[in-house]
Amino acid sequence: MTYQIRKVAAVGGGVIGGGWIARFILNGYDVAIYDPHPEAERIVGEVLANAERAYGKLFQAPPIQKGQLTFACTMEEAVSDADYIQESVPERLDLKQKIYTEIEAHARPDALIGSSTSGFKPSELQEGMSHPERLFVAHPFNPVYLLPLVEIVPSEANDRVQIEKACTFLEEVGMKALVVRKEIDAHIADRLLEAVWREGLWLINDGVATTQEIDDAIRYGFGLRWAQMGLFETYRVAGGEAGMRHFISQFGPALQWPWTKLMDVPDLTEELIDRIACQSDAQSGHMSVRELERARDDNLVGILLALKGNDWGAGSIISEMDKRFYAKAHEDVDEREHDLSKPLELHKARVAGEWTDYNGHMTEHRYLQVLGDATDAFLTFIGMDEAYLAQGYSVYTVETHIRFLKEVPAGTEIRVRTQMLGCDEKRLRLSHEMIMGDDTIIATGEHMLMHVDTKASSACAFCSPLKENLKHINSAQKILTIPSFAGRAIRAVG
Amino acid sequence: MTYQIRKVAAVGGGVIGGGWIARFILNGYDVAIYDPHPEAERIVGEVLANAERAYGKLFQAPPIQKGQLTFACTMEEAVSDADYIQESVPERLDLKQKIYTEIEAHARPDALIGSSTSGFKPSELQEGMSHPERLFVAHPFNPVYLLPLVEIVPSEANDRVQIEKACTFLEEVGMKALVVRKEIDAHIADRLLEAVWREGLWLINDGVATTQEIDDAIRYGFGLRWAQMGLFETYRVAGGEAGMRHFISQFGPALQWPWTKLMDVPDLTEELIDRIACQSDAQSGHMSVRELERARDDNLVGILLALKGNDWGAGSIISEMDKRFYAKAHEDVDEREHDLSKPLELHKARVAGEWTDYNGHMTEHRYLQVLGDATDAFLTFIGMDEAYLAQGYSVYTVETHIRFLKEVPAGTEIRVRTQMLGCDEKRLRLSHEMIMGDDTIIATGEHMLMHVDTKASSACAFCSPLKENLKHINSAQKILTIPSFAGRAIRAVG
Repeated sequence: MTYQIRKVAAVGGGVIGGGWIARFILNGYDVAIYDPHPEAERIVGEVLANAERAYGKLFQAPPIQKGQLTFACTMEEAVSDADYIQESVPERLDLKQKIYTEIEAHARPDALIGSSTSGFKPSELQEGMSHPERLFVAHPFNPVYLLPLVEIVPSEANDRVQIEKACTFLEEVGMKALVVRKEIDAHIADRLLEAVWREGLWLINDGVATTQEIDDAIRYGFGLRWAQMGLFETYRVAGGEAGMRHFISQFGPALQWPWTKLMDVPDLTEELIDRIACQSDAQSGHMSVRELERARDDNLVGILLALKGNDWGAGSIISEMDKRFYAKAHEDVDEREHDLSKPLELHKARVAGEWTDYNGHMTEHRYLQVLGDATDAFLTFIGMDEAYLAQGYSVYTVETHIRFLKEVPAGTEIRVRTQMLGCDEKRLRLSHEMIMGDDTIIATGEHMLMHVDTKASSACAFCSPLKENLKHINSAQKILTIPSFAGRAIRAVG
Repeated sequence: MTYQIRKVAAVGGGVIGGGWIARFILNGYDVAIYDPHPEAERIVGEVLANAERAYGKLFQAPPIQKGQLTFACTMEEAVSDADYIQESVPERLDLKQKIYTEIEAHARPDALIGSSTSGFKPSELQEGMSHPERLFVAHPFNPVYLLPLVEIVPSEANDRVQIEKACTFLEEVGMKALVVRKEIDAHIADRLLEAVWREGLWLINDGVATTQEIDDAIRYGFGLRWAQMGLFETYRVAGGEAGMRHFISQFGPALQWPWTKLMDVPDLTEELIDRIACQSDAQSGHMSVRELERARDDNLVGILLALKGNDWGAGSIISEMDKRFYAKAHEDVDEREHDLSKPLELHKARVAGEWTDYNGHMTEHRYLQVLGDATDAFLTFIGMDEAYLAQGYSVYTVETHIRFLKEVPAGTEIRVRTQMLGCDEKRLRLSHEMIMGDDTIIATGEHMLMHVDTKASSACAFCSPLKENLKHINSAQKILTIPSFAGRAIRAVG
């Protein structure tokens, strides 16, 4: 490589330009932006704020030193010392060509120039440039700071080494550089998007569906599949053991049916079928259909759980199902007449796949999650409901002592036996035994809880009905032996 | 409602029929299947195994009592007492119509019949039926047990009450019932899929892209968007404050450009633009563009993190970025000459958005996650690397004592100060102080760890270089005061 990319220029702010800038800056690169639009600084600032917020949630690593952002007053100031220049001006060929002339007047002759164009071919953009070999399409997807895809489209005029250098740099800032092998209008992704957009417009035009219905048809169905596998790998799995060739021969005839108004279709010749089947083998042939199915399912489960966490779309449905399943599973708990003179069984759970470490066993902190859920079940049992919390009271854990006794694989059903060890005006001491199978103790927990006034952020006395219920349970459980693990400290060694 | 759905029949196994069966059974419904195909039992069994595996990871609630699956020898045995019948036989109109005649010969006249057809109109399917009013399209998406979408398509002949009953039932088994307002070939979703499929075939036919490149263009880009918002809501956000009307006027002209071979396009009349803008307002107008952007970003972050957990597609990129960021953040830790006569700072982290509870504070068990990561950093520091683990040794936590001292919001940068309290041949005792800001202690942890032979699942003596390093650090840290929280038990109350 002739030089390393250190300084980046952005020509054009806006949502796309701003997204690029956010990606560069948050990956540690200094950026100078040139955009004479009076609102540029505000728009870029807003996109950057969104990006910083998203990165804060996306990465567990502490943030690295951000790059510095400079608003340049002239094109010269922005691009003269830039190693990489990203152009994101409006989608007009004459405007873009004029901008390249301005850039070339001030930039170093070997500075790379990527264009965010969604439609133009690189050979069109390069017309009239003095160094066309270093300009290429680098088409990103909104939001640019989160979506990894960037389509890199070179023309015949491009220098391969410079294209490789651009890909290396863009991968360095977390992108997936997809080099498009033939230049066509709208590259690859926007061809597919355009097809869906046209079909969608027809559905609305003909009164078949509304925007909401079309969106729902996507996000509750095939959209979930496409976040992890695309069109062809998904169909390969659907084709089952018979493979891609079988799938096309089944699905192919529909191509000739008058299902759509967009009817120019390629002939499904033997040669085209062969090409697709071979490409699919090269793409996915290293995994069996069964392995692909399980990878697909694991990804779908993860995506559904992520959406559940945000109570959004398909995830809201999973959330409701989970509540219903919990309710059914706890019906027996709730219907049972609890014998307060015995330890209480108030919580059951199952070890989720996402709870396990690389050995397939429940991770350390998930034990505490289950113990915490069991504490919550006890608090619900003594009457801490939404109404109680709404008064500004809550119960916090202040101290926890856990002993880890057994490894537990994913899918294991576990239950928790809870004993009340004592309480005073403000504090409550509990023990839990986490159990699997007939009566194998997996872990034990001892917990000190504090009743708090959440507004004042300070401890305060339990109120009704918790106060009375705790007193009642405490006197019933006093006859029980204190478990041997309670009240014990970790002993010194060596 | 005239009756509650209790018993379900499936006519046709296969991947789609099997997926339906899995969904019904795992939601507690008994199913009788009729499919004379000799492989039906094997195929359904395999789909069911996949589904149980996925549900085990998807739900935290303990599984409810599964429904019972019966393989019926005759159509009569399968459908005679069924309340709901799902037909999933091959996509041939004559075959489907023949099957309905057989079903009607044995089923109750009010039993609901849903067809899995992806292409036929309900009115075509209903031809020749004695009770056409109870047959409708119920088109699901593979894998049926995970994807919520089901397109419900009635014809003029259908009874509205029965369609509502079908929707209620399908929502009860976790589906999103999308009632299609006009019957057309291929309903809604498959129209959109067909459009992408045709465009994809052209790209392959013309040598523009391979199956892998098309899939990558989807799953690293717009596929991630579509798992949470569809086409129109995504574009509404992209249009920014100017809204949907502005977006169409910008993007609309491209409709007339020769970007595709599929060229029949609706005229973008003022009336059509109005209709789309109004529908989009009805769909998303309750949220501002800023709110939509943040919801979108939160969903994308969640999806990326889910894929990161499976080291798949776009998630693998995030994983690599995180490693790079960690490496940069720890450069100073690694380069520093550690003074062993002081507590060690070996781990830093940031409170991720997904770590917080409904109050926006770090959840109890995430404290333990950070303490566990700090323990891992100490183990790495004393030489426990891949090679050491590969010998079949590991270190397990057997006991943990945590004190929770401060609430911590998302985004907080934290570091952990670690002190070695002692060791013997097989055991190691550590304390951690979790710190934010200048020197505010958020939590403390005391941990007893055990060196284990993972094959024998039993404790064993530390080996080189851990043994020597522990001895060295232990003698250097002996001069430090034992923290006051160490060696303490939770005290009795009341």
